[in-house]
Amino acid sequence: MSATTAEQTMETARKLVELSRDHRGVEAVDTLYDEKIVSIEAEGSDELPARMEGIGAIRGKNAWWYENHEIHGSKTVGPYCGHREDQFAVLFEIDVTFKPTGQRTQMSEVALYTVRDGKVVQEEFLYLAP
Amino acid sequence: MSATTAEQTMETARKLVELSRDHRGVEAVDTLYDEKIVSIEAEGSDELPARMEGIGAIRGKNAWWYENHEIHGSKTVGPYCGHREDQFAVLFEIDVTFKPTGQRTQMSEVALYTVRDGKVVQEEFLYLAP
Repeated sequence: MSATTAEQTMETARKLVELSRDHRGVEAVDTLYDEKIVSIEAEGSDELPARMEGIGAIRGKNAWWYENHEIHGSKTVGPYCGHREDQFAVLFEIDVTFKPTGQRTQMSEVALYTVRDGKVVQEEFLYLAP
Repeated sequence: MSATTAEQTMETARKLVELSRDHRGVEAVDTLYDEKIVSIEAEGSDELPARMEGIGAIRGKNAWWYENHEIHGSKTVGPYCGHREDQFAVLFEIDVTFKPTGQRTQMSEVALYTVRDGKVVQEEFLYLAP
């Protein structure tokens, strides 16, 4: 018997949360992300546009992020599930220093994921307003 | 000079968070919600369908909720803002007893709001999976 859409999404959601907790974000992208993943940050810059598409771009973005940040601590809460079978959310809290400036920040963000056939096709990040 | 969409949304978001913190949810609906508000719960029942529409239905739903729950404590975190100018999220943690059964639960939920012209036109609730 094949899994329903809701079951597939939940399985993807639980794996993503587990890998994030284990600091295995690279593995999450490799195993759970669709080739045509769309990633939407709150704000863009010249280096990193707000909207990026394709697994290569997302790998590049993540590599940039890990190279430029020192993580002191993090907490992953989720998955949060609602009525939509193709969507879930995860809460991330990260205590991090941005290496180029030395600025340390306690970030809190809600990540909203869209799933198709068990693969993440969109990630969207919302940040706690100061 | 009129406020931008992003500024309007942020003002609505901050007011909603403030009223929720003060346990003034009824006032939030009265002052911030559109007449045609759509409310999407994770799951529906015979009494309360997952998708409800119109401010009368939402007032009824909220009245039912407050009548049937005893709140021991709550925490409101937000607003969370991303790239979309018409969207924000709020994290709610509620320690609550469902009066008909006496069952006490610690609920954690992400509420996702869509705003048009400064009024909330959709609320969608995602719950922390057990």
